[in-house]
Amino acid sequence: MVKKLNENNLFLSYLLEKKVVVDQALTRYLEDNIPDPPLIFEAVRYSLFAGGKRIRPILCIAASEALGRGGADDYEDILPVACALEMIHTYSLIHDDLPAMDNDDYRRGIPTSHKVFGEDIAILAGDALLTQAFCLMSRADLMTRIDPATRLKAISIIAEAAGMTGLIGGQVMDLKAEGKQAELDTLYQMHNRKTGALILASLQAGGLLAGADPMAMEALMTYGQNIGLSFQIADDLLNVEGDMAVLGKNTGSDASRGKVTFPALLGCDESRKLARRLKDEAVAALSNLDHRAEPLRKLAEFIVNRRS
Amino acid sequence: MVKKLNENNLFLSYLLEKKVVVDQALTRYLEDNIPDPPLIFEAVRYSLFAGGKRIRPILCIAASEALGRGGADDYEDILPVACALEMIHTYSLIHDDLPAMDNDDYRRGIPTSHKVFGEDIAILAGDALLTQAFCLMSRADLMTRIDPATRLKAISIIAEAAGMTGLIGGQVMDLKAEGKQAELDTLYQMHNRKTGALILASLQAGGLLAGADPMAMEALMTYGQNIGLSFQIADDLLNVEGDMAVLGKNTGSDASRGKVTFPALLGCDESRKLARRLKDEAVAALSNLDHRAEPLRKLAEFIVNRRS
Repeated sequence: MVKKLNENNLFLSYLLEKKVVVDQALTRYLEDNIPDPPLIFEAVRYSLFAGGKRIRPILCIAASEALGRGGADDYEDILPVACALEMIHTYSLIHDDLPAMDNDDYRRGIPTSHKVFGEDIAILAGDALLTQAFCLMSRADLMTRIDPATRLKAISIIAEAAGMTGLIGGQVMDLKAEGKQAELDTLYQMHNRKTGALILASLQAGGLLAGADPMAMEALMTYGQNIGLSFQIADDLLNVEGDMAVLGKNTGSDASRGKVTFPALLGCDESRKLARRLKDEAVAALSNLDHRAEPLRKLAEFIVNRRS
Repeated sequence: MVKKLNENNLFLSYLLEKKVVVDQALTRYLEDNIPDPPLIFEAVRYSLFAGGKRIRPILCIAASEALGRGGADDYEDILPVACALEMIHTYSLIHDDLPAMDNDDYRRGIPTSHKVFGEDIAILAGDALLTQAFCLMSRADLMTRIDPATRLKAISIIAEAAGMTGLIGGQVMDLKAEGKQAELDTLYQMHNRKTGALILASLQAGGLLAGADPMAMEALMTYGQNIGLSFQIADDLLNVEGDMAVLGKNTGSDASRGKVTFPALLGCDESRKLARRLKDEAVAALSNLDHRAEPLRKLAEFIVNRRS
């Protein structure tokens, strides 16, 4: 019990340490490029520092660490890609929250971008974050120890994950599925794109930058596919059962909107079981990796059990 | 007179030939990646094939040709970047036309994306085109003869031009300038970002892919800065004087919206003179380039004198 508590504390310190590293890097990269007038910069910063857990950048760094890279010595080689993942994630949230999409007023406990800056600036802030992600990954003064072909491949992996067959395609499926009866298969496919694709890309990019061999890459990808889906099931469960004060957004909003969710299709108990099974499969995929993959194993637990 | 007519015909054939090459490439690249369901693909295709003149891709190819590359033998090396420029341009039009932005119902004579597909899909179609541009420029199976460091640099140039200090920053300035008294300096700055940045990037990218030396690059950039601004002045003049039937959108819309424009600040005659002077400066910048830069010289004329 004491050991378990200590382990948990260690992992929470790990998460906090990485979050600080990512936050500092995001600040530094943003400030390299402040436009005049700075309105759009304010809007970008507002959403980027609105309390995100930095799951994707941390997964990217942890994947790299699992293969012996990504630690403090390697931060300069991996942080631009890790931060780009967070920028793309944040852009997708800003656009998803727009009145024409999910029309959400709150996110992570604070008003959404369009409530603060207006719809026009919110659309442009999303566009700016998406564009900025690619600026960052291609900058000549960063990642100088990574060979350009590898950097190009990282950009390709992340762009594909963010595109029509990934993140954007998932959002289209989500919008068009509202109020309709859906099959479990459709739900899997939607979430594999909407949430799964970028989570998977985080792990692939981390592995790529660490020089993963095909077997290690396969392990990271199986891990990524499984936690991507369990992440979304956990999200759906939180929307049903979560506490508005902890979650920072309205709970029950999925149901009132007629969204197709795992709890709606399978019930809460079955959904919880499925999330745990996926988490176990994710961890099992890492069996050939040594103790350096421990943060990834803990991250799988964290993703399924989180309260916000 | 006959010689002049023949020259013009030759140039129009050049434009048409390049447009066909770009259109075919856009079709091919898009069809490599059709999502299921294809709704977002339909929206992307609708705007991408809504009658654009392909000015940016053609500038990119012509810049490359001016330095002895970019012709038919080199198409495979340059078309992904040329097409990415058109995708970014098209995304910016879709988002600019949204109700929360300029609220335009027509563009190039047909209904805008949000009028046909709804606001949600229009936002996502813009997002998809922006993302697709980076997918295309980073694809492993394309541009195989260009070294990865050069490809990375092309991505960087284009991403910066599309970002907060370029295209997006210009749109922010434009939105916030509506109805306000503006100085000529502010107008220059706004257009240098909103229209100029991506036109300049088209020339830089074309030069880069053709292996331009610093002097040639300097010439292309001076040319680009001048035609970028003259392009926008011509646009402003068309908005005042143009014919709705030819232009495909409502004329006089800038004035009724209180937009700051060159004709509003300088009058039509002075604006026309300024556009011609900028065009002359653009052409003069190419004086050290040989006959292969002829299409760029003609393009400068075309941009200032176009009727739509």
